[in-house]
Amino acid sequence: MNSSTSSVGAITAQRADFEGPLRLLNGQALGPFSLAYETYGTLSPRADNAVLICHALNASHHVAGTRPDNPEDIGWWDNMIGPGKPVDTNQFFVIGVNNLGSCFGSTGPASINPATGKPYGSDFPVVTVEDWVNAQALLADRLGIERFAAVMGGSLGGMQAMQWAIAYPARLAHAVVIASTPRLSAQNIAFNEVARRAILNDPDFHGGHYYAHGVVPRHGLSVARMIGHITYLSDDDMAQKFGRSLRGADNYRFGFDVEFEIESYLRYQGEKFSSYFDANTYLRITRALDYFDPARVHGGNLAAALAPAQAAFCLVSFTTDWRFPPERSREIVSALMKNNAQVTYAEIDAPHGHDAFLMADSRYHDLIRTYFAQIAEDLSAQAVPR
Amino acid sequence: MNSSTSSVGAITAQRADFEGPLRLLNGQALGPFSLAYETYGTLSPRADNAVLICHALNASHHVAGTRPDNPEDIGWWDNMIGPGKPVDTNQFFVIGVNNLGSCFGSTGPASINPATGKPYGSDFPVVTVEDWVNAQALLADRLGIERFAAVMGGSLGGMQAMQWAIAYPARLAHAVVIASTPRLSAQNIAFNEVARRAILNDPDFHGGHYYAHGVVPRHGLSVARMIGHITYLSDDDMAQKFGRSLRGADNYRFGFDVEFEIESYLRYQGEKFSSYFDANTYLRITRALDYFDPARVHGGNLAAALAPAQAAFCLVSFTTDWRFPPERSREIVSALMKNNAQVTYAEIDAPHGHDAFLMADSRYHDLIRTYFAQIAEDLSAQAVPR
Repeated sequence: MNSSTSSVGAITAQRADFEGPLRLLNGQALGPFSLAYETYGTLSPRADNAVLICHALNASHHVAGTRPDNPEDIGWWDNMIGPGKPVDTNQFFVIGVNNLGSCFGSTGPASINPATGKPYGSDFPVVTVEDWVNAQALLADRLGIERFAAVMGGSLGGMQAMQWAIAYPARLAHAVVIASTPRLSAQNIAFNEVARRAILNDPDFHGGHYYAHGVVPRHGLSVARMIGHITYLSDDDMAQKFGRSLRGADNYRFGFDVEFEIESYLRYQGEKFSSYFDANTYLRITRALDYFDPARVHGGNLAAALAPAQAAFCLVSFTTDWRFPPERSREIVSALMKNNAQVTYAEIDAPHGHDAFLMADSRYHDLIRTYFAQIAEDLSAQAVPR
Repeated sequence: MNSSTSSVGAITAQRADFEGPLRLLNGQALGPFSLAYETYGTLSPRADNAVLICHALNASHHVAGTRPDNPEDIGWWDNMIGPGKPVDTNQFFVIGVNNLGSCFGSTGPASINPATGKPYGSDFPVVTVEDWVNAQALLADRLGIERFAAVMGGSLGGMQAMQWAIAYPARLAHAVVIASTPRLSAQNIAFNEVARRAILNDPDFHGGHYYAHGVVPRHGLSVARMIGHITYLSDDDMAQKFGRSLRGADNYRFGFDVEFEIESYLRYQGEKFSSYFDANTYLRITRALDYFDPARVHGGNLAAALAPAQAAFCLVSFTTDWRFPPERSREIVSALMKNNAQVTYAEIDAPHGHDAFLMADSRYHDLIRTYFAQIAEDLSAQAVPR
């Protein structure tokens, strides 16, 4: 467990261009399009050691390591992926891919619409988890990966791993679904809706065509991020980190500027986010979350939705996650057990709420490490038959 | 328990004018000022049967009955207060008062500032729970009430009842504190802060002086209300009422207009609220919530803060209230018990979240009915000594 670990080092992002068109769930066709991705480790001669990492709301294909031009720009799941880390890049060929509609390199609302020569803006389609997975499958084809050793993700990323198991049952051996849910609750949708309202109401939104106006709906996006951020942290964790501490003062100042530390933190998070994230992307990613509900076309029967899956599942939830609480993961586990699927489930007692999936809790990481070590062992047993 | 109940009928609001100035917690002096109020029932000759009802965020002095000009305008706690109701106006003289800084009749940000001849706007002071209670005490003086039989409120109203017991220990026999808390948590403050940001960022806010521009920060206020509303309902209740039902469609429409019923509900709530509530008031009331923390000047020792209290306490919390959960009420109960105060506490298993305090759950109402019946019995025992 205490083997030495290191970083995958400086990684250059790559780009795969596709003529398309990709048929989307909403009926539209998108093309041409590009996907930005990164890879870590080496694809085995049998091309059987590939692991696809699916990202959540505001993340990207930059999963591990640093950027050649910026050693401070560390991948969002660097504590999980690298040499000697739980997903060990000495054994696995790991791929991070940026989803369609994002703002980090893959084709999205800020990209040029070939039909107009201008940014898509609000003309960029409302993409879904299903669409993302279909695009990821085209990237897998391009990279010569017929079958992933595992598809893995947390939160919205976990939805993609589930969707892979449903849509491409023969193309993954394991689905690793962390801090996720088979569908958003009314409360989850409500938070997304308020965030979207804040963006759509911002006068700088200009109906989604703000690029032409040289502005971004910064205020709306900032409020949206603040709302999201509250739901990522647990009540206890927020109490422990910030409590009712005042910012730079011993007494109340009786105004509406920053007074409490928690306000300062949230404003900072909101402002930072609104400086680099695209509002049209935020709208689409929250909508993709709202829409994901594989049981919907099966009358709410999740076991029926998961029936095509052949992958073994590993699910993890965190006790203080009130965004996607353990009950939601248990629902997936129950459906899989009803289908006699192979499933490993752990509920980790962690204080960090939804964000726990990004943190290096040792019980959590040990579990993932053990799970992937077993996958590696199985692969080498298959590679070198006795 | 099933005695017949009726409404207090059509009630005309009254107004009490005060020269002031009222010294506020922030050091400013406010005056002249007015308080809007209503009364139900009859003050006893001994003036010992008065009950003060303190309101929460968006409510007013219109607690029970209807308005002479509008039989549909029913008071916000009409199910609790009236002839034969839990707080029985055949026995008690009940007063509803609108707090300073509100927008329903008492002096607030939309009132004319005598210093300028224009609406106060952002020059209206940031008032606190302490200030409200001090103003309410002046109204009690005016009405000839030396000592209340009870001061009662839910949520922010409960904070006022607590503050009464601390600041005016001899002036109330009972403090009835429902779904309340001795202080906001970091998460509570966080939600308030996001709501305020939405208002302050709205270009129609004009630094709080929007009255002069003939506009109101409608969008910001609407988003603020939507955020608040999510925290008033329980996750389960929202799931039961709305679930993932689509609004007027069988299938996804892949856009950002209303898609789910919960979105429609929240937008309606936000828009309705922003049509009648004042944004400057919203800012101040949320700040008053943030600031209330009687233990603060006692190094966090709530028992020390409550030490002056002489009132008997009745506290009620609701199991699914995640805004001010039962733990917060239990904290008050523990502090009171440490002080050997007389305290009754009930935790009601109700599905409606924070809003449960406004609903007619029979266990909850029976408890309040019984509690007030005992108060009435004690009063008549004192009035007619054997």
